[in-house]
Amino acid sequence: MRLAHVGIVTRDAEGLARILGEVLGLAITARDRDEERGLAFIFLGESPALELIQPLREGTTVDRFLAERKGGLHHIAFWVDDLKEALERLTARGYRVVDGPRKGALGHTIAFLHPRDTGYVLVELVQEPS
Amino acid sequence: MRLAHVGIVTRDAEGLARILGEVLGLAITARDRDEERGLAFIFLGESPALELIQPLREGTTVDRFLAERKGGLHHIAFWVDDLKEALERLTARGYRVVDGPRKGALGHTIAFLHPRDTGYVLVELVQEPS
Repeated sequence: MRLAHVGIVTRDAEGLARILGEVLGLAITARDRDEERGLAFIFLGESPALELIQPLREGTTVDRFLAERKGGLHHIAFWVDDLKEALERLTARGYRVVDGPRKGALGHTIAFLHPRDTGYVLVELVQEPS
Repeated sequence: MRLAHVGIVTRDAEGLARILGEVLGLAITARDRDEERGLAFIFLGESPALELIQPLREGTTVDRFLAERKGGLHHIAFWVDDLKEALERLTARGYRVVDGPRKGALGHTIAFLHPRDTGYVLVELVQEPS
């Protein structure tokens, strides 16, 4: 599998995009918002991109992460050709899915595996755009 | 700049390499040890790789990270053509270096920027092999 993006949680996605643009020379390649989940996204660079994730209100899926630290690396996401097939293969081997499959940023279909099953690394699988 | 690797801290690099091999289909591409710093490294995949970092004793640079959590995403590393030039450019703009420049895993020359200057994301710069 190929790395799709590295997810980074921040309280200020615009500010962090400016900083990482200056430090790493990465340009903004996409923006998105998930109004239902209260999250804004800025993508820097491409495949692998950096995905900056900012909560827009209280009560989002990144609240606990931001309660424990001020921001930082959150997850790694890998492209899969067929998410349904990948999840069937992994759940048959005992890996648990904690979120998804569902629509994620940029209209992709995504799922997250349980970080306890993957060395406390939150792994996202993203179906390749067809 | 291109992503060189994602650094992951773990208490069991061999075990995590097996898990991520099974989940992500990534093969081990390199191993290294830093006896001075008490760290073992396993690399999965290539550019960007996953760099698994395991402490071999007490008193390593990842002790505090492992005191706060059980393991997980630690840093992101980007290739630079000329590390000295990159650090001069960044320190002139106020970014602080917390470690390096020095020899890192696989004989590369590396440096880490202060995570407070980069949104609590630990950023490593790695000089391209010449």
